[in-house]
Amino acid sequence: MDAYTHKVQYYETDQMGIVHHSNYIRWFEEARTDFMEQLGMGYAEMEKQGIVSPVLGVDATYLRMARFGDTVSIKTKITSYNGIKLSMEYEIYNKETGLIDCKGTTHHCFLNRVGRPISLKKDLIEFHNMFLKGMEESQEDEKSIEEKEEGKED
Amino acid sequence: MDAYTHKVQYYETDQMGIVHHSNYIRWFEEARTDFMEQLGMGYAEMEKQGIVSPVLGVDATYLRMARFGDTVSIKTKITSYNGIKLSMEYEIYNKETGLIDCKGTTHHCFLNRVGRPISLKKDLIEFHNMFLKGMEESQEDEKSIEEKEEGKED
Amino acid sequence: MDAYTHKVQYYETDQMGIVHHSNYIRWFEEARTDFMEQLGMGYAEMEKQGIVSPVLGVDATYLRMARFGDTVSIKTKITSYNGIKLSMEYEIYNKETGLIDCKGTTHHCFLNRVGRPISLKKDLIEFHNMFLKGMEESQEDEKSIEEKEEGKED
Amino acid sequence: MDAYTHKVQYYETDQMGIVHHSNYIRWFEEARTDFMEQLGMGYAEMEKQGIVSPVLGVDATYLRMARFGDTVSIKTKITSYNGIKLSMEYEIYNKETGLIDCKGTTHHCFLNRVGRPISLKKDLIEFHNMFLKGMEESQEDEKSIEEKEEGKED
Repeated sequence: MDAYTHKVQYYETDQMGIVHHSNYIRWFEEARTDFMEQLGMGYAEMEKQGIVSPVLGVDATYLRMARFGDTVSIKTKITSYNGIKLSMEYEIYNKETGLIDCKGTTHHCFLNRVGRPISLKKDLIEFHNMFLKGMEESQEDEKSIEEKEEGKED
Repeated sequence: MDAYTHKVQYYETDQMGIVHHSNYIRWFEEARTDFMEQLGMGYAEMEKQGIVSPVLGVDATYLRMARFGDTVSIKTKITSYNGIKLSMEYEIYNKETGLIDCKGTTHHCFLNRVGRPISLKKDLIEFHNMFLKGMEESQEDEKSIEEKEEGKED
Repeated sequence: MDAYTHKVQYYETDQMGIVHHSNYIRWFEEARTDFMEQLGMGYAEMEKQGIVSPVLGVDATYLRMARFGDTVSIKTKITSYNGIKLSMEYEIYNKETGLIDCKGTTHHCFLNRVGRPISLKKDLIEFHNMFLKGMEESQEDEKSIEEKEEGKED
Repeated sequence: MDAYTHKVQYYETDQMGIVHHSNYIRWFEEARTDFMEQLGMGYAEMEKQGIVSPVLGVDATYLRMARFGDTVSIKTKITSYNGIKLSMEYEIYNKETGLIDCKGTTHHCFLNRVGRPISLKKDLIEFHNMFLKGMEESQEDEKSIEEKEEGKED
């Protein structure tokens, strides 16, 4: 999976001269949307089929401060998925420094048109398979990074 | 009609140290919502009845810069309404200085559930009467301000 | 300490028909700002004295969905403070239902004009004392709630 | 000059199921920033040299509704520039339909570190020349579009 690229906009800054912390939460969403599109079916398509996926929880840790003019690169992974709940992880890298600015996670469920939780496995099998595939690819990406790092250590 | 009060939030600032100009457009909406509630029926109620009122146009002129910690007072008026189209005017005053920070206008129509323009006069008479009443009160407010100002000049 | 009140705005909703999850993070900031003002010195005052307090981390758990037209009440507490780091906790209640919509925490440090971490105890003693007082009051509020709940159980 | 591309994000929608009208004002800013970068010097660079360029006025006309999942293409032009004031024009096209969703203008001045209006011609000649060049190119783009349209009519 390719990392998602976001260019920091002026309206995303605050008077501290840095990106307002709430915007990283929005960037997680941008990256999540892009991740699904790379897997083959966008979130817009899911809503067209009558399923919404609200956020149950979010956390973010701010390590360095992104600024106007910066470009960030967001690596997204599925860390768990069981048909009913989905957890994703994000790492936001500053393209200039290569350092990590922020990392975080989001948790989701799936609801039908009347707001009742559903199992994607039962009700939207193509999306279920897509998230399974996304989770596998996330694990492979993880493994390949670990192998590279082990290689470096030799 | 009472003016609407908004306290400037930190997340509304940008790195220029002032409120980002896009937020005044959002404050117009806050004031418009409050104006309708003062008239007796909120915009939430209108949407419940199946009518939405999108913005067709907006303009804003920025005269002074509102900052974090400021409180602003927004005077709202209906400048024209004919059952099909609605125009409103906003003046944003800084509570500390008493001076005007921003003024602007918005233009609206009314759409039904399938997105077709409707006449409120035909399809939602209580809201039609409400906007007529709002326009009258706006004109009375205007007149009473003019009379006061004439009084001052004597 | 009084709870902070926020009226949900139309621009805070998304196409799911609920408040976009990133806005609760902004409401935490609104409540935090109000909490400091109730303690006697606002955040604007802190910045005037050359100290900024960036967010190091945030988390939010979404339990119920706030909607346009709702009014929420936010209870804010200092959960830890040692002169160098500050943690705060937020509970967002829906005024109509009385139920909790969202809870979360934020973590902060304090930086001087050149971006170096400082100890408020050394560099801004009035704010240091204020946060200590705020932490004590948070603990008393907690205790009084617990006592009430124990009272109920009798 | 190349048009600027923006992908509509979920957090930019509201409960009407369309992009909230305030976001188009933010897209104008994105396009303006990109326009300056294409001309050779970004707005970040201008601020580094101690000059800010606040928005004095903005207007937008909404013709069609952009939605989540859409990609828009923004054509930006300098319509007037005299060293002291700058006006720009924006046309937001929907990439799928090719139709125009929104058009608008913004007006700007230039301020130095103490907030006093300056003449770029005197105080920041490279940016002055850049805006002159941008205005010329805008006029050439205009002319070439007109010629094409005349060509079509033959």
